[in-house]
Amino acid sequence: MSERIYTAGLVVIGDEILSGRTHDKNIAQVASWLQVQGIRLGEVRVVADIEAKIIAAVNALRAEHDYLFTTGGIGPTHDDITVDAIAKALGVPVVVHPEARAILERYYADKGGVNEGRLRMARVPEGAELIPNRMSGAPGIRIGNLFVMAGVPHITAGMLDALTGTLEGGAPLLSETIGGFIPESEVAGLLRATEQAHEGCQIGSYPFFKDGRVGSNFVIRSTDAEALASCAKALGEGLDAAGFAWEPGGIAPR
Amino acid sequence: MSERIYTAGLVVIGDEILSGRTHDKNIAQVASWLQVQGIRLGEVRVVADIEAKIIAAVNALRAEHDYLFTTGGIGPTHDDITVDAIAKALGVPVVVHPEARAILERYYADKGGVNEGRLRMARVPEGAELIPNRMSGAPGIRIGNLFVMAGVPHITAGMLDALTGTLEGGAPLLSETIGGFIPESEVAGLLRATEQAHEGCQIGSYPFFKDGRVGSNFVIRSTDAEALASCAKALGEGLDAAGFAWEPGGIAPR
Repeated sequence: MSERIYTAGLVVIGDEILSGRTHDKNIAQVASWLQVQGIRLGEVRVVADIEAKIIAAVNALRAEHDYLFTTGGIGPTHDDITVDAIAKALGVPVVVHPEARAILERYYADKGGVNEGRLRMARVPEGAELIPNRMSGAPGIRIGNLFVMAGVPHITAGMLDALTGTLEGGAPLLSETIGGFIPESEVAGLLRATEQAHEGCQIGSYPFFKDGRVGSNFVIRSTDAEALASCAKALGEGLDAAGFAWEPGGIAPR
Repeated sequence: MSERIYTAGLVVIGDEILSGRTHDKNIAQVASWLQVQGIRLGEVRVVADIEAKIIAAVNALRAEHDYLFTTGGIGPTHDDITVDAIAKALGVPVVVHPEARAILERYYADKGGVNEGRLRMARVPEGAELIPNRMSGAPGIRIGNLFVMAGVPHITAGMLDALTGTLEGGAPLLSETIGGFIPESEVAGLLRATEQAHEGCQIGSYPFFKDGRVGSNFVIRSTDAEALASCAKALGEGLDAAGFAWEPGGIAPR
């Protein structure tokens, strides 16, 4: 098992997210999926449907991370410019992918056939492979370690599913959660001391309000199962000593 | 009315978003709020609780936009490093803000008093003003055009509310108020649906208690006079349809 930490960047493309009209669901979805592949999401950038902005974000994050994912802007309309922007970022031309074209022709055969807009979705940066789309016609696009996916969350989910287990990742990140109706400000010192005493462990503190009471869940993360267990045990004992009741697994924030 | 387009950047700080454990709500919330102030959200970066990453994102986006907002990492625990990172980004020292300290001492007076962790929340970059926090003790921080806010969405909402109308934007914010002896909990769905159906409009609900009866005033805000009028009309009709009496201008809460 590799000790190397694999990281990914995510570029979310879409004016509708920046205007507040659409609530993004892809950040959490991609993040959770990456965790399971043993890859850490290192940074997300949300950019407008502006070619220069997409190119800048893609180039910055692909230089810094092992993998780069994008969501959004691969549909049939004039404002879907992700493919062109990514081709420019990579310095390759845009070509029609024959398999993508065949998929779209089949998919739209009983829906009025392909038209210019629909055929836009067969355009890919030269050298790309396709990511299957089980939900609708247009496939996602893979070019090396760059993955171009749909913006509609359930279509993105299908594309991620198709990629599951195919990416090289490091040791999967393990986590253990404990929590209770504990104000985080009363245990800040304990959290810090416990984290410091357990190398390779990280403790996140996530406050919540539930049924009119404040509480916190503490998530201990590590790639080392033994260190994780020992850190979680120490934190539980520390909370006991401070007189706080807690539950393994934490409190569902409702 | 100015023709200049004002833009803002947003840096969302928190490992919990990048791990997929917490679904971000602040991007949509800040985006919608900015729309109403006449300011466009130009880019969002989600970064981990790592000082260098926060500094890089803050410096990149503040150079590019009129305003910069951050959410997250201003709590009492060791992983709350936003204040230190921003002070470094601005090249100023971190100081204890006497008013913030007084607020925290009052807030925690009957909750066990301040301790080292809680007093961390009085630390600000030198030269900062406070943003009121109506929900819990710790205030947000304003340094020029940089706004440092909480990560917990309902606390962020309160801070945004305190800033409403105070920022110079591209178009002035207009508002219309209607209200009546209407319990807000009986019309929550109507308020949400009406707001969603009217782009660029925000509806605030302000409950009151008068002469032994509960009521609410609804404040519709927009930079677009036509959208505002249409939203106010739709809300009035919705209240009529639900059988609630209301008055233009609302009810003076006395």
